[in-house]
Amino acid sequence: MNIALAQLNYVIGDIEGNTSKILTQIAKAKQQEVDIVVFSELAVCGYPPKDLLDYPSFIDRCETSLEIIRQNTEGIAVLVGSPSWSGLTKGKKLYNSAYFFANRTLLRRIDKTLLPTYDIFDEYRYFEPNEVFECVEYMGEKIAVTICEDLWNIDDEKLYKVTPMDELYRQKPSVMINLSGSPYSYNHVEKRRTRMQLNAKTYGIPLFYVNQVGGNTDILFDGGSMFINRVGQIVEECAFYEEDFKVITWDSKCIYKDNHQDYYDYDIGLIHDALVMGVRDYFTKIGFKNAVIGSSGGIDSAVVHAIAAEALGAQNVKAITMPSQYSSTGSIEDAKKLADNLGSPFSIIPIKEVFDTFSETLAAEFAGTESNVTEENLQARSRGVILMAYSNKFGNMVLNTSNKSESAVGYTTLYGDMCGGLSVIGDLYKEQVYELARFINRYGEVIPFEIINKEPSAELRPNQKDSDSLPPYPILDKILFYYIEEKKGWREIVAMKIEGVDEMLVRKIIQLVDRNEYKRFQASPTLRISHKAFGTGRRMPIVARYNH
Amino acid sequence: MNIALAQLNYVIGDIEGNTSKILTQIAKAKQQEVDIVVFSELAVCGYPPKDLLDYPSFIDRCETSLEIIRQNTEGIAVLVGSPSWSGLTKGKKLYNSAYFFANRTLLRRIDKTLLPTYDIFDEYRYFEPNEVFECVEYMGEKIAVTICEDLWNIDDEKLYKVTPMDELYRQKPSVMINLSGSPYSYNHVEKRRTRMQLNAKTYGIPLFYVNQVGGNTDILFDGGSMFINRVGQIVEECAFYEEDFKVITWDSKCIYKDNHQDYYDYDIGLIHDALVMGVRDYFTKIGFKNAVIGSSGGIDSAVVHAIAAEALGAQNVKAITMPSQYSSTGSIEDAKKLADNLGSPFSIIPIKEVFDTFSETLAAEFAGTESNVTEENLQARSRGVILMAYSNKFGNMVLNTSNKSESAVGYTTLYGDMCGGLSVIGDLYKEQVYELARFINRYGEVIPFEIINKEPSAELRPNQKDSDSLPPYPILDKILFYYIEEKKGWREIVAMKIEGVDEMLVRKIIQLVDRNEYKRFQASPTLRISHKAFGTGRRMPIVARYNH
Repeated sequence: MNIALAQLNYVIGDIEGNTSKILTQIAKAKQQEVDIVVFSELAVCGYPPKDLLDYPSFIDRCETSLEIIRQNTEGIAVLVGSPSWSGLTKGKKLYNSAYFFANRTLLRRIDKTLLPTYDIFDEYRYFEPNEVFECVEYMGEKIAVTICEDLWNIDDEKLYKVTPMDELYRQKPSVMINLSGSPYSYNHVEKRRTRMQLNAKTYGIPLFYVNQVGGNTDILFDGGSMFINRVGQIVEECAFYEEDFKVITWDSKCIYKDNHQDYYDYDIGLIHDALVMGVRDYFTKIGFKNAVIGSSGGIDSAVVHAIAAEALGAQNVKAITMPSQYSSTGSIEDAKKLADNLGSPFSIIPIKEVFDTFSETLAAEFAGTESNVTEENLQARSRGVILMAYSNKFGNMVLNTSNKSESAVGYTTLYGDMCGGLSVIGDLYKEQVYELARFINRYGEVIPFEIINKEPSAELRPNQKDSDSLPPYPILDKILFYYIEEKKGWREIVAMKIEGVDEMLVRKIIQLVDRNEYKRFQASPTLRISHKAFGTGRRMPIVARYNH
Repeated sequence: MNIALAQLNYVIGDIEGNTSKILTQIAKAKQQEVDIVVFSELAVCGYPPKDLLDYPSFIDRCETSLEIIRQNTEGIAVLVGSPSWSGLTKGKKLYNSAYFFANRTLLRRIDKTLLPTYDIFDEYRYFEPNEVFECVEYMGEKIAVTICEDLWNIDDEKLYKVTPMDELYRQKPSVMINLSGSPYSYNHVEKRRTRMQLNAKTYGIPLFYVNQVGGNTDILFDGGSMFINRVGQIVEECAFYEEDFKVITWDSKCIYKDNHQDYYDYDIGLIHDALVMGVRDYFTKIGFKNAVIGSSGGIDSAVVHAIAAEALGAQNVKAITMPSQYSSTGSIEDAKKLADNLGSPFSIIPIKEVFDTFSETLAAEFAGTESNVTEENLQARSRGVILMAYSNKFGNMVLNTSNKSESAVGYTTLYGDMCGGLSVIGDLYKEQVYELARFINRYGEVIPFEIINKEPSAELRPNQKDSDSLPPYPILDKILFYYIEEKKGWREIVAMKIEGVDEMLVRKIIQLVDRNEYKRFQASPTLRISHKAFGTGRRMPIVARYNH
C-alpha cells in the first residue's frame, strides 16, 4: 500500500484556493499510484480559522468543497480535515473532522476528541468533542484515524480524562494516521517527535503523521510530517518550513527500520528559518511586497533587517535611520554599512526639526515642567510617525523591531518604537537576538561586527545605556524566562539563587512585566517561536492588583 | 431563614483586598442575623482572572484566603466562589468552585459543570468540568448550588449535553442558589432575568442569584442580583452598577409574590451608566485620577468627554483641541463651549507647525509624489503624539474617542485617533452615540446642540464629510450590525432588501471590516456593551482570504 503525506501551506479562509491545492495533490497522488493521500487538520479552511467558524455560511462552503473533493477520489482514498456541522440539539454546533473518502464514497467522518484550549489554542470555543471511537477498514488494513491533540494525551501529563487511542486500540488497528495542525516553538519539534514515537511504541503499530506548513499571522507551522515505524523509529520526515509530498510504501506485514539521519535539533537555525517563513508568509498572504524598517544601528533592527531581506529580497526592504541629537555617528554608519552589506535602499531622515517643533508647540502647555521621559518618547513617536508616513506613501509595511526582553519590561514607547504591522523578533529575548545575529553571520559579516559588539543603548538622552535602567541582559532574560515561560512567582525565582539576582531585583522585574500589560495589549502580532509568547497565547488581565 | 445577597465590586488578583471585603460583609450579615450570606463566582480572586490562574502560587493564595474565611463563619453559613485545585491526574488542574462554609466547617465544595468558552469567555482554558451532582443540606433545607452558566442550559439553545439542575432536581431540592459572574450587554439584562425566571418556573423552586458589579478593563458587570419566587416572579432585585447587600427572609413553606416594580428595560440610560462605571473603575483600579481627551468639536469626543466628566469629575478631564488648517472655527468654538458647559480645563494646541515640519522633513523622500491619505494620517498622528506627550508629562490617561462604526470599517488612523488607554464608546455604533448624546442632554444642554446637529466630518481635508467615503450612518450601522452581531454573510444581508442597500455596498462594507482586522488588533481595550464587541470577544484571523 502506498500512503502519501501531503504537507501543504494553506491560506485561512481561502476555501476555494485550498481546495484547488488539495485537488492538485490528489491528481499527483493518482499518477504516483498512491492508495491513500493524507492532508492535515482543517486543511479545507486553513488552521486556525478562529471566529470565521461562527459564520454559518463559512461551514456551508467547506461542505461544498468536501463534495468537490469527494468527486475527485475515483480510484484513490483521501483523508482531509474540515469543520463539519455536528447536528446536535445539545452541544456545540461544530466538529473538527477528518473525512475519509475512497472511490467517491465517504467511508467515514472521524471527529476530534481532544480539543486543545490553552495557550494559543481555543478549540472548545468552537467544537464539540467526539465520543464515538471506530477504526476505518480499507484495503485489508484497520486504520485508527485521529486528529492532532488526540495523540497527545500520552506520557505523564494527561490533560484529558479520555485517551482516544486507548479506545481505538480495542479494535486492533494495524496502523495509525494522524491529521495535525501543530505549530512550531523552539522546544516543540523534539517534544512532538518524542510523543509521536511514544504512540507508535506504546501501541506497537506504525504512525503516519501529517502536519501543515506556513505562517498564519503570528503562528508558525513548521511541517516535519513523519512516518514512524512500529518500534518508534522515524523512518521518513518531511521538510521543515516548506511544502512537501512523500510517498511511503507500507503494509502491515513489513517491519521498517530507521533510515532517517538528519534530525533537526533545537538550534538557532530552526528559529531563523521560522522567522524567515513567518515574514514571507505574512506578506505574501496579505499581498504586500515591501517592508520599511527604522534602522537604528542597534542589534534588534539589524537582525530584523537581515531576516526581512532574506524573506522579501533585500531590495524590497527600505531602511531609514532617523538620528536625533543623541544618536552617535557610529550608529548612522553602522546602519548604512548593514544596508550596504545586504543591498537594501537606505535613507537618513533626521528628526531634530520635528522634535524641536513639537517642543515649541507644547512649550506653553508644558511651561514650568522638568524634562523627563516625555521628551524621550517624543523622539520615539516622531520616528513612528515618519515610518508610518513612508508606509502610507509607498505601501511598505513597517516591521516592528522590539525584542521580548524590552517588551516584557515595557522598555518601549507605545505608538513609537512599538509601531509596525508585524513584530519579527518580539518572541526572542535579547540574548537570543545576539545568538541569531551570530548565526546570520555564519558565512561572513552580514550584520557589521560593530553592531554586535557595542553596548545596547536606546540613544534617547546623552550617553544613555540600557544598563542604566535594566540589569544585564543575561540576568534579565533568565528572570523573565522563569516568570513568563515557567510561571514561577518571585519567591521561587529568588530561591534558585541565580548569581547576581536578589529579591528586590526579581520583584521589580516582575512588577514591570505586570504593569506593562496595557502596552503589550496594543502591540502588533508577534511571530511566535517559544511555548509562551506575548499575544494570543498569554492572556493576562490589564486591570489587576496581584503581587506575584 | 435569612439569606443575604452580597453584590460586591472585586479587584482581579487582589486576593487580600477581596477577602477583607468579604469578611466585612460576613460581619455585617452576622449583625443582621443572616443565616446564609452568598457571594458571587470567583469572588476571592475577582472575575475574570485570566492567565493569572496559570500561576500555581495564585491558587495557593486563594486557598489561604478561603481558610481565613472559613475561620470567620462562626454562627453563620457562607457561600463564596474561588478557583480550587482539582487534584486530578487526568484532566485540567483546576475547578471553578463554590465553597459552602457553615460554623467553621466546609459543608461542601461545589464545582462548576458548564464552562462557557465563547465570545469573551475562556473557562475551559482553565477548568475541568464537574461531573458529580449533590445538594447541600442546611437548616432543614435542601439547597441546589450552581455556578453561573450551570443555569443557562435551559430554553431552546442548549450548548451543553448536561443540564446540572436536571441532575440536582432528582434529589428534590427546596431552593436554588446561583453564584454568578455575568457581564452586562444591552440585551443581556432581560435575557438573564428571563432565563433565571425560567429556571424557577421549570423546577418550581425559588432562586437566589448573586452577581458581581464593577468594570474589569473592557468587561462591565452590572449586578442586578435577584431573588425569584417559585412561580418565576422577581421579588427582589439589587442595584445596577453599585455594590448592594439585600437580606431576604425565606423558608420553603412561604409563597412569595412579586412586589418588584421598577424593572430596567433595554435603554440608553443603562448603557450610559455602564460606560460611566467602566471609566471610573478602569481609572480607580489602576490608580489613575485624570484623563485627557482630544476634543475635536465632533459628537464622538463630546460624548466621551461628558461620560468621563461624570465618571472622574469634570475638573479631572483635560480637553485639548488641536486644529489644523482644515478645522472650522465652529469646531473649536463647539469644543470650548462643551468644556465650559462641563467645567473642564481646556487648551488649544494647533498642529500646523508640526504638520509643516513633518512635511519638510519628508520632502526629499517624498519628492515627486502626490498628496494622498498620508497627509491626512500625518495630522491624526501629530495629534496622537501631542496627547501622549501631555499624558507622559502630567499623568493623564488618554481616552480614545473612536466609535464602533468607524473602527469597523477602518475609518481611523493607527497611532493617530486610535491612540489611548481605553476606548469609551468603541462598542457603540454612530447612531447609538447620537442617542447617548441626547440622553446626556435630557435635563438641558450639556453637549452643545451645534455638535449634535452638524454633519459628521473628520476635517482632514477641505470640506471633507464622512459621507464622502461612507454611506449614511443609519444604513452603515445596519449592515455592520447584521454582519458583526448577527453573523450574516453578504448574500443574507442583501436578501433583507434594506432600503438604500445594494449588493455592491454590502460587499464593500464587509470587505472593509475584514481588511481592518490588523488595525483593530492594535486598538486599546474597549468598554463592552453589546453581545459582540471588538476585542476579547471577537477573534478573527488577521491574515485570511475569505470572501463572506
